[in-house]
Amino acid sequence: MKIDGIDKIIIKSLVNDARTPILSIAREVGVSGAAIHQRLRKLEKSKLIDGYKMVINPKILGYSTTAFIGVFLDSSSLYSSAIKRLKEIPEIIESHYTTGNYAIFIKVLCKNNEDLMQLLNKDIQNIKGVSRTETFISLDQQIDRQITI
Amino acid sequence: MKIDGIDKIIIKSLVNDARTPILSIAREVGVSGAAIHQRLRKLEKSKLIDGYKMVINPKILGYSTTAFIGVFLDSSSLYSSAIKRLKEIPEIIESHYTTGNYAIFIKVLCKNNEDLMQLLNKDIQNIKGVSRTETFISLDQQIDRQITI
Amino acid sequence: MKIDGIDKIIIKSLVNDARTPILSIAREVGVSGAAIHQRLRKLEKSKLIDGYKMVINPKILGYSTTAFIGVFLDSSSLYSSAIKRLKEIPEIIESHYTTGNYAIFIKVLCKNNEDLMQLLNKDIQNIKGVSRTETFISLDQQIDRQITI
Amino acid sequence: MKIDGIDKIIIKSLVNDARTPILSIAREVGVSGAAIHQRLRKLEKSKLIDGYKMVINPKILGYSTTAFIGVFLDSSSLYSSAIKRLKEIPEIIESHYTTGNYAIFIKVLCKNNEDLMQLLNKDIQNIKGVSRTETFISLDQQIDRQITI
Amino acid sequence: MKIDGIDKIIIKSLVNDARTPILSIAREVGVSGAAIHQRLRKLEKSKLIDGYKMVINPKILGYSTTAFIGVFLDSSSLYSSAIKRLKEIPEIIESHYTTGNYAIFIKVLCKNNEDLMQLLNKDIQNIKGVSRTETFISLDQQIDRQITI
Amino acid sequence: MKIDGIDKIIIKSLVNDARTPILSIAREVGVSGAAIHQRLRKLEKSKLIDGYKMVINPKILGYSTTAFIGVFLDSSSLYSSAIKRLKEIPEIIESHYTTGNYAIFIKVLCKNNEDLMQLLNKDIQNIKGVSRTETFISLDQQIDRQITI
Amino acid sequence: MKIDGIDKIIIKSLVNDARTPILSIAREVGVSGAAIHQRLRKLEKSKLIDGYKMVINPKILGYSTTAFIGVFLDSSSLYSSAIKRLKEIPEIIESHYTTGNYAIFIKVLCKNNEDLMQLLNKDIQNIKGVSRTETFISLDQQIDRQITI
Amino acid sequence: MKIDGIDKIIIKSLVNDARTPILSIAREVGVSGAAIHQRLRKLEKSKLIDGYKMVINPKILGYSTTAFIGVFLDSSSLYSSAIKRLKEIPEIIESHYTTGNYAIFIKVLCKNNEDLMQLLNKDIQNIKGVSRTETFISLDQQIDRQITI
Repeated sequence: MKIDGIDKIIIKSLVNDARTPILSIAREVGVSGAAIHQRLRKLEKSKLIDGYKMVINPKILGYSTTAFIGVFLDSSSLYSSAIKRLKEIPEIIESHYTTGNYAIFIKVLCKNNEDLMQLLNKDIQNIKGVSRTETFISLDQQIDRQITI
Repeated sequence: MKIDGIDKIIIKSLVNDARTPILSIAREVGVSGAAIHQRLRKLEKSKLIDGYKMVINPKILGYSTTAFIGVFLDSSSLYSSAIKRLKEIPEIIESHYTTGNYAIFIKVLCKNNEDLMQLLNKDIQNIKGVSRTETFISLDQQIDRQITI
Repeated sequence: MKIDGIDKIIIKSLVNDARTPILSIAREVGVSGAAIHQRLRKLEKSKLIDGYKMVINPKILGYSTTAFIGVFLDSSSLYSSAIKRLKEIPEIIESHYTTGNYAIFIKVLCKNNEDLMQLLNKDIQNIKGVSRTETFISLDQQIDRQITI
Repeated sequence: MKIDGIDKIIIKSLVNDARTPILSIAREVGVSGAAIHQRLRKLEKSKLIDGYKMVINPKILGYSTTAFIGVFLDSSSLYSSAIKRLKEIPEIIESHYTTGNYAIFIKVLCKNNEDLMQLLNKDIQNIKGVSRTETFISLDQQIDRQITI
Repeated sequence: MKIDGIDKIIIKSLVNDARTPILSIAREVGVSGAAIHQRLRKLEKSKLIDGYKMVINPKILGYSTTAFIGVFLDSSSLYSSAIKRLKEIPEIIESHYTTGNYAIFIKVLCKNNEDLMQLLNKDIQNIKGVSRTETFISLDQQIDRQITI
Repeated sequence: MKIDGIDKIIIKSLVNDARTPILSIAREVGVSGAAIHQRLRKLEKSKLIDGYKMVINPKILGYSTTAFIGVFLDSSSLYSSAIKRLKEIPEIIESHYTTGNYAIFIKVLCKNNEDLMQLLNKDIQNIKGVSRTETFISLDQQIDRQITI
Repeated sequence: MKIDGIDKIIIKSLVNDARTPILSIAREVGVSGAAIHQRLRKLEKSKLIDGYKMVINPKILGYSTTAFIGVFLDSSSLYSSAIKRLKEIPEIIESHYTTGNYAIFIKVLCKNNEDLMQLLNKDIQNIKGVSRTETFISLDQQIDRQITI
Repeated sequence: MKIDGIDKIIIKSLVNDARTPILSIAREVGVSGAAIHQRLRKLEKSKLIDGYKMVINPKILGYSTTAFIGVFLDSSSLYSSAIKRLKEIPEIIESHYTTGNYAIFIKVLCKNNEDLMQLLNKDIQNIKGVSRTETFISLDQQIDRQITI
C-alpha cells in the first residue's frame, strides 16, 4: 500500500500522542479537518493503523527489571504446549521462536532480581519440558520505539 | 502507588482500545462517567499512564522480519558513541545493555531477509567500533503484550 | 588419473554449459571433433564425469531462503534412523556428519521464513530423537560453483 | 509461475540425466515429442531451467575432504574485500553471509587433511582482515540433491 | 541507614582486626572509649555489623585449590533438592543461582587437583539430577576483601 | 599440621562467633580455660588462625546485587596492569586468574542493577585493555561459609 | 629427588636413543663407563626412569589422522563405566577427565577421515551413556616430545 | 606395508620393554634368534620402528599437572612465528593445528597449578600475537598408550 507525505504526518502525530486534535494536524498540513478524517478512515481500513492504546508505565508499579530468557526444552516438539503455559504468566510480554540455539526466546518484566528469581524458579522452570534457561538482564535501554515510516 | 479494582478495569479497557467511551466503562463498573474521568486524571498524574498512542501494523508496509542482533564492539568503552549512531537507524526499535556476552543487544524490524542483510552489512557493521554481530531471526511470535496489572 | 590441458578445456566448457557444441570446443583447441568425442568417452569411463544435469532455479518457484541447520540428537546412536527420516523431507538438500558439536548438519531451501518455521517445527523437530536444532539463515551467497580443475 | 504434472516429469527426467532423449520422455507421458519440446522452451524462457551442466566427480581427482569453515574478520566491514579474495581460491565452492556468529561461512573441497591445512594456513588466513577460522570437516554425506519440485 | 566518618573508622579498624582495642580506636578519632562503645552498640543494633568471626587459613590445612563449578541439572526444577545435597558437602563454600547458562554456580576449596577430581566425580556428579559440570580452577587470586564502606 | 577434636571445637566456636567466652568453650570440652588459651596460642602460631574480623552486612547499606564478571583483555599480557586498576574499585571483592576462557574473573557487590551498569560501563570497561565483559548476576545465594575442618 | 649435570646428559642421550652406547656417554662426560652404569642403576631405582620402549611410527601402518574428541555423557556419573568401554577401543591412545565442559576428553589415531567416522559412529557413540561428541582433527603437529629435564 | 603375526609379537614385546632379550622373544614364537634379528632389521628399514627411547617419569621430578591449552592469536597468520616461540618452552610437549576454534592447541606438563599460572602468564601470554588462552586441566588420566597394531 502507498502512503503519501500527508499520511505520514498524520501517523507520526498520532503515534506520538493519540489525543492530538485532528484540527491541529489539519492546520499543520494545511488541509481541512474533514480531509484528515477521511484519510484516517482510509488508513484504518487498510489495517496500517492497528488501533489505539493507552500506554502504562510499569516502573510506576515497581517493574524495573527487564530480562531476556532463552528457554531450552527437553525436545523441540514441546514448543506448542510450552507456549500455552508461558501465556498464563503475565510477566512474559514477548515470546519468539528464533534461529540460533534456544527453543523459545522470551522477554519479561519483573519488579526486581528476587522477583525474576521467583519467575524463573517457580513459574518457568516448573513447566513440563523446560530443561534449562539462560537469562540476560537489561541494565540499560536507550532505544524503545515503533518503526519510523 | 495503589490502584484498586475499578482503576484496573479502566486501565485494561483503555490499554486494549484507547477509544473505549468513558460512559461504557462507567456502565461496566457501575459509577458515573464523572467518577471515571476523575480517576483517569489521578492515574495520569501518577504517571502510571504514560500516554496514548496510535499503533501501526508494520506488516502492512511490508516489514515482516523481526530479528535480535547481538553487537560486539572493539572495546566496551565505545558504548555511548555506538548508541548515538544506532539511534539514527530507523529499523532499530530497541537497544539494551545486557549481562551476558554482547556489548549491545538490539531488536530490528526489516522488510525481508535481503533488507536485513543490507541493514547489517551497510548500516550496523559500518559503525566505527562494531567488530562483529550475531543475529537471531524471529520465525514466529506468539506473545506480544503489555504487562497485565 | 591424469588430465591434460585439452581435457581441461573440454571439461570447463561442458561444466559451464552441457549443450556447448562439440565442434565449437574442437575449433577452440584446434583438433577434430572426433578427437574431442574420443576424449569425452575416456573421461566418462574414468568416472571423472559424473553425468549431465538440468539445473533448476528454485527462486523461480519461490524458494528464496537458504539455511544451515545443526541438529542435536538425544543420542548420537540415532544417526542412521534420523537420516532415514530426513531423506523424506524434500527441502533438505544436503546432510553432513561433521566434526564439531552437531550430530547432523543440514542445508535446506525454503520459500520464506514462515516456511522455514514450519519445516523446523513440524518436520524436523518431530523426528524421534531430535532434541534441538540451531539454524543459520544465509542472507547472501556470493560463491556457488563446482571445483575448478 | 505454475507448472503441471507433465512439466514435473520433464524436469525430473532431465535433472536426473540431461541426456534423456526427448522421445523417451514423450512416450512416458503420452504426448508427442514436439509437445515436450514446446514445454521445454516455455520452462527455459521462464528461467525455471537455469541451464545444463556437466557434473564432475571431484573424488576421481583426489578431492575427498569436504569442510565448512566459519571465518571471523577483524571487522565485519571487511566483508566485500574478503569475498573478492576468497573468490580467487578455487577450493572454495560456496560462501554465505549468515545469521549466527561468523562473518562468512564457506564450503571447501580439498584433497585431504594436509591440503586443508595448507588452504587454511596459506590461503585463507593470509587474507587481510581474517582474524580466525573455525573448521568442521564433513566425515559423511548422506544427502546431496537439488530440491524436488 | 546513615554512618558518619567516625563510624567508618571504627568499622575499618574492626573489619581489619576484630581484636583492635577500643581505646586505640578512641585515641585515633579523638573521642572517649565510652563514645566508641556507644556507637558500636548502635551499629550492632542496626545489623550493619553481622558479627565477629575467627578467620582460618585453609592453606595451612592443605587446601590450596580454589575452583568455580557450573552445575547443569537434568531439569532446572531440581534446584531445591540439589542445593540440599550440596549443603552436605563441606568443600562447597558458596552456591549461587545465576543468570547465564548454569543451573547452579558453586565455589569450592580442595586440597589439590586429585581432591577436586574426587569431589566432582564422587560427590557432586553422583547427586541425582546433576547431568554435567564445568570447572574453572583459580590459578591466582589477587583480590579478596569485604566491600569498603 | 595436626589438629585434634578439642582444637576443632575451639575453632568451630570461634569461627561461628569470635566473642564466644573461652570459659564456655572450656566447659563444653571439659578442660580448664588455661588449657584452651594454650591451644589457641598454638593454633595462632601455626597460622591456621588467620585473625579475627568484624563482619559487616552489606545489605544494610543497600548492596543487594552480587555478580560475577568475566573480563576479556585485548591481550592476556595486560593482566598485571589491569589487576592494579581493578584493585582501586571498591565494589570488586574477589579477582581470580582462572582456567577457562576469561582473562580475569571477578566478584562484585553493587547496590542494584543500575549501580552494576555504572560499574561496568564507567569503571571496568574504561580500563585500558579491557575489550569486553560477560556478567552473571547472582539471583539467590544458598551457601556462604568457610570450609568446615 | 636431585639430579646433577652428568645425570642430565645420561638421560638426554638415552631419551633420544635408548641404544646409545654407555661408553660414548662416558667419553662425552669424561668419567668411566662403570660410573655411568652406577648412575643409571640409581636413576632406575628412583623410578625417574620408567623403562625403555620401542617406538613405532603409526604413519607407516597408514594411521595419518590424529583427533581429539570431547565426549558428553547423559550423566557424569557414568564416567567409570564409559572408561571401561573406551579402553577396549585400540584407536584411543589417551583419555582425560578435564575441567571445562567435556565429561571425557580423548585422543585417537585413525587411518583417515572415513576411519574416524566409523570410530565415532560405530564404536564411541554406541557406548551406553554417550550422548554426543565434539571432534577436533589435528591438521598439523609441530611439537611432540617428552619434557626436557 | 604388511606385517605378520610373528612381527606383531616382536613389536609388542619391544614396545612394552625395549630391553626384552631377543632370545626370549625367539623362544616365545619358536624360531631362532637370528630369524628375529633379521625381521627386526626389516622392520627398522621399513621405518615402522621409529627408534628406541628411555622413558622418564615426570612425576618423580614433581611434574604432576597435565593441561591442554587452546591458544588464540590476534591473527591466524602468526601461526609459524608463534610455534617457533612455543618450541622454546620446555613444558610444552605437544602442539596441534586443529579444526575447531583455537589457532593452536597445546599439551603441557607442569609441577603444579602455580607453575601452570607462571607458564601461562609469563611464558605463553607474552608471546607476540597471543591474544588469549583457554586452559583445561587433566584431573585424571586413565588411558595412555601407543596404538595397538
